[in-house]
Amino acid sequence: MANKLLKCKIGLSILNADLASLAAESERLLTSGADYLHLDVMDGHFVPNLTFGAPVVKCLRSKMKDVFFDMHMMVAKPEQWVKDVADAGADQYTFHIEATQNPGELCRKIREAGMKVGMGVKPNTDINVVVDWIDQDLVDMVLVMTVEPGFGGQSFMQEMMSKVSFIRSKYPTLDIEVDGGVGPNTIDSCAKAGANMIVSGTAVVKNPDPAKVIADMREAVNKQISLYSL
Amino acid sequence: MANKLLKCKIGLSILNADLASLAAESERLLTSGADYLHLDVMDGHFVPNLTFGAPVVKCLRSKMKDVFFDMHMMVAKPEQWVKDVADAGADQYTFHIEATQNPGELCRKIREAGMKVGMGVKPNTDINVVVDWIDQDLVDMVLVMTVEPGFGGQSFMQEMMSKVSFIRSKYPTLDIEVDGGVGPNTIDSCAKAGANMIVSGTAVVKNPDPAKVIADMREAVNKQISLYSL
Repeated sequence: MANKLLKCKIGLSILNADLASLAAESERLLTSGADYLHLDVMDGHFVPNLTFGAPVVKCLRSKMKDVFFDMHMMVAKPEQWVKDVADAGADQYTFHIEATQNPGELCRKIREAGMKVGMGVKPNTDINVVVDWIDQDLVDMVLVMTVEPGFGGQSFMQEMMSKVSFIRSKYPTLDIEVDGGVGPNTIDSCAKAGANMIVSGTAVVKNPDPAKVIADMREAVNKQISLYSL
Repeated sequence: MANKLLKCKIGLSILNADLASLAAESERLLTSGADYLHLDVMDGHFVPNLTFGAPVVKCLRSKMKDVFFDMHMMVAKPEQWVKDVADAGADQYTFHIEATQNPGELCRKIREAGMKVGMGVKPNTDINVVVDWIDQDLVDMVLVMTVEPGFGGQSFMQEMMSKVSFIRSKYPTLDIEVDGGVGPNTIDSCAKAGANMIVSGTAVVKNPDPAKVIADMREAVNKQISLYSL
């Protein structure tokens, strides 16, 4: 099938970077070739960690006007932050379907606020829950978590790849993001399953040559995209 | 009464500073003569704002070894973060008495983790609730909020000064902190009521001459301390 729209995008998670110098760290890591920033907002309720919220994102945006901000909202009440996060300058609002009673309404609210809609599933969540909302054309991206959300540096869960394959087989041009333990050793699995948006944190941030890690991951994904785009 | 222990300390709230360059901003503002950093942790549940948590504080500590970190924990479950915040390198854990069912146990837990205990009251909270815990010698500092917690830049609530006077009259050497709308125009009220730990954010951060603002506030407080220390 022809699939000219799908592109590989590498997202940088700065969770394990220097959060006291977020702007400088982000600038440094973006020069390594990442396509967007994946910003991990945690409220200590949806996950047992508390990172940062809209005020920090707003300050970051004031330093970097053109970078795509994908907000990974690991929060108990995702409805609560749509306005603040949009005002802070975010481009995409990726919420967890486990955290809301009314995903459709939330999707519409996010779009009305001028952002793209990301819908995330935790490892124990059945991937079928996202299908209805994609079919209603309310979702721009599905995030398949490949670790339990909450902390950086965890090990990749290979068994999540069946979720990615399932969504890719149904939706050849939908953006599918993987997040958690993704790096040079696990990128081939993600690429083969059909993920095209690759969040990488530790594997990039802690590597002496982040540009090479990013280039290698991009190559692995593009190789697969070219295969299933024939 | 002799009161040689009480000292004026000026704390810097960086809530309205550049949170994407927290380390650099803190360093810059500390050179203006502030005595400590007052770090506003908000979880979006106790207050309707989400700022930052222990991972950010840990990164900040790695850049500044000797600064006193007073953590203002505006969180719904203050018990949850004692270990993380202590591990991040904080010196004092200031929780809100409204957020806990068991203040005594929490105070002990904070001390066991190697931190000083701050006990905060919101504007609508009766100041008498802190007395028992001070009398049991579990509290190192009382924080009297002079605005509703949640955001920087609000107007000072003069009527909170009676809470400060009440605590000062009972405890001549206890640290009493005021937070919210404190600056050159309101410092005299705080000083006269007996506050000796002064949190200032906007008034310092947004001023072209932060060193003068801090020096003036310190002078106002020291003048009062010298009067009631005779």
